[in-house]
Amino acid sequence: MTKQERAARTRQELIRAAAETFAQHGYVQARLADISASAGVSPGALHFHFENKAALAAAVEAEASVALRAVARDVYRGRQIALQALTDATHALAELLRDDVVARSGFQLSCQNTLGTGLSLRQEWQGCVQHLLALAGTEGTLAEGVAEQDMATAIVGATIGFEVLGRDNPEWLSQRTVTRFWRVMQPRLAAPQVLERLNPAGARPLAGVAPYGPNRPSRGGADLEGRARS
Amino acid sequence: MTKQERAARTRQELIRAAAETFAQHGYVQARLADISASAGVSPGALHFHFENKAALAAAVEAEASVALRAVARDVYRGRQIALQALTDATHALAELLRDDVVARSGFQLSCQNTLGTGLSLRQEWQGCVQHLLALAGTEGTLAEGVAEQDMATAIVGATIGFEVLGRDNPEWLSQRTVTRFWRVMQPRLAAPQVLERLNPAGARPLAGVAPYGPNRPSRGGADLEGRARS
Repeated sequence: MTKQERAARTRQELIRAAAETFAQHGYVQARLADISASAGVSPGALHFHFENKAALAAAVEAEASVALRAVARDVYRGRQIALQALTDATHALAELLRDDVVARSGFQLSCQNTLGTGLSLRQEWQGCVQHLLALAGTEGTLAEGVAEQDMATAIVGATIGFEVLGRDNPEWLSQRTVTRFWRVMQPRLAAPQVLERLNPAGARPLAGVAPYGPNRPSRGGADLEGRARS
Repeated sequence: MTKQERAARTRQELIRAAAETFAQHGYVQARLADISASAGVSPGALHFHFENKAALAAAVEAEASVALRAVARDVYRGRQIALQALTDATHALAELLRDDVVARSGFQLSCQNTLGTGLSLRQEWQGCVQHLLALAGTEGTLAEGVAEQDMATAIVGATIGFEVLGRDNPEWLSQRTVTRFWRVMQPRLAAPQVLERLNPAGARPLAGVAPYGPNRPSRGGADLEGRARS
């Protein structure tokens, strides 16, 4: 391993350790000494990479933003029905928040008003939801008589609620919870002719679950699979 | 004013000042000196009423819980269609969080994992939602083919999302936002024969808005009006 590779690895290790410490103790009470110890580096090494705690928090948020954009990119790339892409995106966001402490901590930092940077992750997510609903409107797969803005309000509200509730109880970020939400929403949001091609559990195949109806194209699942592999 | 009345007033003033300080700076960074100054009392008077910051936070949460229960009690008392009571309860919760810094701070304290007491307010709200859905199920006004637990997941998720998003942008707690949510949800959740008797904007009359359809009984509005007056 070159010196550069070692430095990059140490930096990543510090970001992960900071995210874990922020998630556990909150930003204000997190101590730099605990973060460097958890990353297995000296306090001097921490200061070589990050000037202070705020710089570490900004790095956590930036990493979380990259992960969120990867989720959005992969569902856009799917070229499936837009409402299924939106369903898959919420499943992918929940999985990300469940499994990735950096993403979880990045969203959580935006809950505390001690940092000025907070709102952007939630706004990015809101933008993703609105974009996919606009796509659905363009492709003509939305139910008539429901305003896109009303749909966005319900979807953004619920997914941010799951994010916050999931900090204390991960069941709120489970595939089961997100599936429950879409079982309520899909029949209200989708035009009748596309409803049977939608899967509230997400288009990603799971062991022991038959995810597709007979009419369902298989490419949608492969895309979120692709995200997980990359 | 008797000595007892003065003491009770000072205690209330300290709780309000603490809620404002927690909401603005977060629990960890809130300083007792700022709280006593904001309440217009000496540090000694603060310590006469509250042993420490945790005791103040517990008092804020207790007050918020009382306010939340008043919301729940008033909508139960209405004896209207249970789904309208649930709609009204979410409007009343949003209004409470928008207008009452003690309620807002009480919910916000449960977002920080520095206190052990946090989860109860959200759990109380979840219990209120589940109870009203069960009532709706018993009275036969729910749509067929939608599980009550799925409905509760969507409603609790969205309302907690509005609570959190509303801290940065009060529009998320506006009557407009809550009405948008129920315009999406009521047609999915209500049995067809009661749908025209439901009002997504809440049963409480607003100046310049015609809140009732022709078939709507007027008592539902009076109940939340009663809450506002008390």
